[in-house]
Amino acid sequence: MERIIDNISPLQRARADYEPKVPSIFNGHIHIAEGETTVSVDDCEEIKALFPNTYGLPIVRFEAAEMADTTDPINVGVILSGGQAPGGHNVIAGLFDGIKKISSESKLYGFLMGPDGLVQHRYKELTADIIDEYRNTGGFDIIGSGRTKLETKEQFDQGLLVLKELNIKALVIIGGDDSNTNACVLAEYYKSIDAGVQVIGCPKTIDGDLKNDQIETSFGFDTACKVYSEVIGNIQRDCNSARKYWHFIKLMGRSASHIALECALQVQPNICIISEEVKEKQTTLAEIVDYIANVVAKRADKGENFGTVLIPEGLIEFLPAMKKLITELNDFLSRYGDDLELVKKSAKRDYIISKLSPENGQFYASLPKSVAQQLTLDRDPHGNVQVSLIETEQLLADMVGKKLKTWKKMGKYTGKYKVLTHFFGYEGRSSAPSNFDADYCYTLGYTASVLIAGGKTGYMSTVRHTHRPHEEWIPGGVPITMMMNMEKRHGEMKPVIRKALVKLDGKPFRTFVEHREEWALNTCYLYPGPIQYFGPSEVCDQPTKTLMLEHT
Amino acid sequence: MERIIDNISPLQRARADYEPKVPSIFNGHIHIAEGETTVSVDDCEEIKALFPNTYGLPIVRFEAAEMADTTDPINVGVILSGGQAPGGHNVIAGLFDGIKKISSESKLYGFLMGPDGLVQHRYKELTADIIDEYRNTGGFDIIGSGRTKLETKEQFDQGLLVLKELNIKALVIIGGDDSNTNACVLAEYYKSIDAGVQVIGCPKTIDGDLKNDQIETSFGFDTACKVYSEVIGNIQRDCNSARKYWHFIKLMGRSASHIALECALQVQPNICIISEEVKEKQTTLAEIVDYIANVVAKRADKGENFGTVLIPEGLIEFLPAMKKLITELNDFLSRYGDDLELVKKSAKRDYIISKLSPENGQFYASLPKSVAQQLTLDRDPHGNVQVSLIETEQLLADMVGKKLKTWKKMGKYTGKYKVLTHFFGYEGRSSAPSNFDADYCYTLGYTASVLIAGGKTGYMSTVRHTHRPHEEWIPGGVPITMMMNMEKRHGEMKPVIRKALVKLDGKPFRTFVEHREEWALNTCYLYPGPIQYFGPSEVCDQPTKTLMLEHT
Repeated sequence: MERIIDNISPLQRARADYEPKVPSIFNGHIHIAEGETTVSVDDCEEIKALFPNTYGLPIVRFEAAEMADTTDPINVGVILSGGQAPGGHNVIAGLFDGIKKISSESKLYGFLMGPDGLVQHRYKELTADIIDEYRNTGGFDIIGSGRTKLETKEQFDQGLLVLKELNIKALVIIGGDDSNTNACVLAEYYKSIDAGVQVIGCPKTIDGDLKNDQIETSFGFDTACKVYSEVIGNIQRDCNSARKYWHFIKLMGRSASHIALECALQVQPNICIISEEVKEKQTTLAEIVDYIANVVAKRADKGENFGTVLIPEGLIEFLPAMKKLITELNDFLSRYGDDLELVKKSAKRDYIISKLSPENGQFYASLPKSVAQQLTLDRDPHGNVQVSLIETEQLLADMVGKKLKTWKKMGKYTGKYKVLTHFFGYEGRSSAPSNFDADYCYTLGYTASVLIAGGKTGYMSTVRHTHRPHEEWIPGGVPITMMMNMEKRHGEMKPVIRKALVKLDGKPFRTFVEHREEWALNTCYLYPGPIQYFGPSEVCDQPTKTLMLEHT
Repeated sequence: MERIIDNISPLQRARADYEPKVPSIFNGHIHIAEGETTVSVDDCEEIKALFPNTYGLPIVRFEAAEMADTTDPINVGVILSGGQAPGGHNVIAGLFDGIKKISSESKLYGFLMGPDGLVQHRYKELTADIIDEYRNTGGFDIIGSGRTKLETKEQFDQGLLVLKELNIKALVIIGGDDSNTNACVLAEYYKSIDAGVQVIGCPKTIDGDLKNDQIETSFGFDTACKVYSEVIGNIQRDCNSARKYWHFIKLMGRSASHIALECALQVQPNICIISEEVKEKQTTLAEIVDYIANVVAKRADKGENFGTVLIPEGLIEFLPAMKKLITELNDFLSRYGDDLELVKKSAKRDYIISKLSPENGQFYASLPKSVAQQLTLDRDPHGNVQVSLIETEQLLADMVGKKLKTWKKMGKYTGKYKVLTHFFGYEGRSSAPSNFDADYCYTLGYTASVLIAGGKTGYMSTVRHTHRPHEEWIPGGVPITMMMNMEKRHGEMKPVIRKALVKLDGKPFRTFVEHREEWALNTCYLYPGPIQYFGPSEVCDQPTKTLMLEHT
């Protein structure tokens, strides 16, 4: 019987013993095999010029070897960068086990609270007892994370001092597209000054937008989507029992709609909006409202005054009219912000409309008051509109309600419309990893140790064939420059890893499109339930539907 | 490998095969043994006078028997009443299996969308294939639920027509305290007119406030608390990794704080407010804000500008000042509501304050604008304040922020205070039941069939010793009148089942109090993780901490 007050939950205790499943090749010694040289996905000349030392490197694969290439101890540093994603601790555990297998005298240092820890020389040695405490757990609390960007020569030089002091031969940076871009810049710099420090990246982000031909998925996406799908599924079961609410559910994910799409495939909601489609088709807010209201009305005709709508967090920025409005508002606020403060509260809205271009003014006037307020009252320290604070779920729910009222007057709609809104984000970022993410992350970390032992720098740790049984997974390394192109950032052209948005011709989106009409009108809800760790493999070990559809 | 688009999730498929664990006594034939006669918990004379036919009945236990008492087919009707609770479908499955074991010719009818289905004669026969589809699933969608109260003779007589038509010998009502009270009134009435229809109740509610000496817990409480604790745990892991947010989390549960207390025991948050304590100590809103702000400040002194606060949904109604204000506001709105409409928006607040008593006016003035607005703008169809719409989590977060600002000016506080708010409710009401609830509910339903076969009416199905292994569970029946007393409802004295609030001298609350100071200042978070169905018993089969503490 469990102790009633304890310092660890029964599931935490049971999961501590889980041994991540790894590719067969990890059972013996490994030798690195180099493939053909690579080129960047675009802007090859510019990228090559910016990364003379790390451009054009070969993709590397692992081969079974008779004996180890090296048995010299290696000191390694590790950094967690950006938002939490389930499995980060397992990357570190895999890295730890990997370098300890090379030599029991290898040491792993964790830099504290993100990249800043490297610059500020805040670190701790990650010993076996610390690592064991964090195996298969969620969160990034083992060393913390942070959002400082490693970009400047001063930061790099400052970091090098502590790396040299600790005799660190390689640095592993666990982060998203930006952090991996910076990892590559750092790798290039250390190589160019012959610093003797390799840099390896690991693909992290629940948003799922760090993927390409070489990276099948970023870690954390699997778990986060499963957590969101669990609670959405529960809400759908409630919705289908109570039969009286429309639930508008916003899901984390600023740039891409991978999370919303994956959840839609897992729960089969009545409606899911995909930002990339909105952008491609130049769909207006009014058209989205019309589309949702239409589904509500059609279901009402069948007596079904309930349903679910999934909304990606980033939608608002994909709406062309909203984008234009925000641009003009930012400009307006910087010029007239102080004047606006002096305008009487009840007159603010009209004042703003009078100052905007007719097109933006009209669009602004069409927004519900609460959203209009959010757009102008809550500004970030630079005076800009804080898009992430806009409650898109409430915005759409209100506008659909307004539309339905007009339809009711016209006799076009006779149903009842009651709404509940939800936002899921923080619930999924730090969940304990699913078996998939636990295995995948451990493998990524272990792979990083092999790349380090092989002397590689400017590489990202990768695992391919992740839709197959773990024995067949193919770990390796990909030069980060290969994934880069030039993009405008803050008005300047920069080398960056290309963000992976939802492909409208990809199988996940096409599968959704094939079914969405049926899901809209009929009630085809699925209830995925909570992540399971111990049951049948088809329940516990399946990757996301996105991954399966993209690779089978 | 799972099918990618399917009509059922892999976990749903796996759970369909789960066979609920039952008390050993269910393995053979059962005979009902009667104990001593009972009296009501209070107001015995009044209750006895109101229930002449169902008062003073004995508690009944089950004994193993050589052969069945009856093998005659029995037709039974079942009703789901009120909000969803995990396990409702298993009550129905247990009932179905129970009456089919008596005779394969027994029939089960489900009345649709709650008690209204009985009155309106809307029903469907629940056949084996329907039952099988819903075993171990969440929600109430098998027949739907509703909130119509069965209270009048007209309803009872109308219902009797369809019961007679279907040759239904017994009606099982699955509901909370009110529904079970009404079940007893119905039992009394049918007995008094010799209608030949027994009525049996089943204790349902995620709120956990239907419990007493005879009923150890209401079903659904276990699962709902585990779902909430999972997501709170995830948020705590995030909180402890990001180290920069205070999360204010409101939890469903209008009257009692059992859910908040159970979640606190499961996740060990920094702060949890218990409404019953607030009421007992006559704590003011200002004192609660002070208490929270103090913890925030003390943690800030240690550099920990993050934490979690659990808030029961019903808190607002337990605050004496708020209760008084709402009473006066309801009165005010009914008298001056139309005048208020005419007052200019910016002047409304002052207008309201001018009309309230000085005490209530002062308290109203102290509330953040958004909450003050919620109190007067959103009214229910009767013109009353809609308490459930008040965002208590935002209210407290804002007021704590204000307090901290004044402390900052005084130099008493130097930390950073960033807030995120959450409300969890619908996520837990319709989750698939935990093993505990799946087993408990099935046992409750099966027990109901035994009570029916034994000719009992006015009884609630009960299971005792639920903190022990299922073999030792003791199913039986308790006369509903035994749990009753007289209480004022809508100005009238009524016989009702006494609601179980959190006992301040009970072990669950005392255990919380013993630890809360430590949890406030240190970070002692537990991460319970998702409900598990297939793993080790200490992970999958544990009841709530509340239940364990109350019974061991």
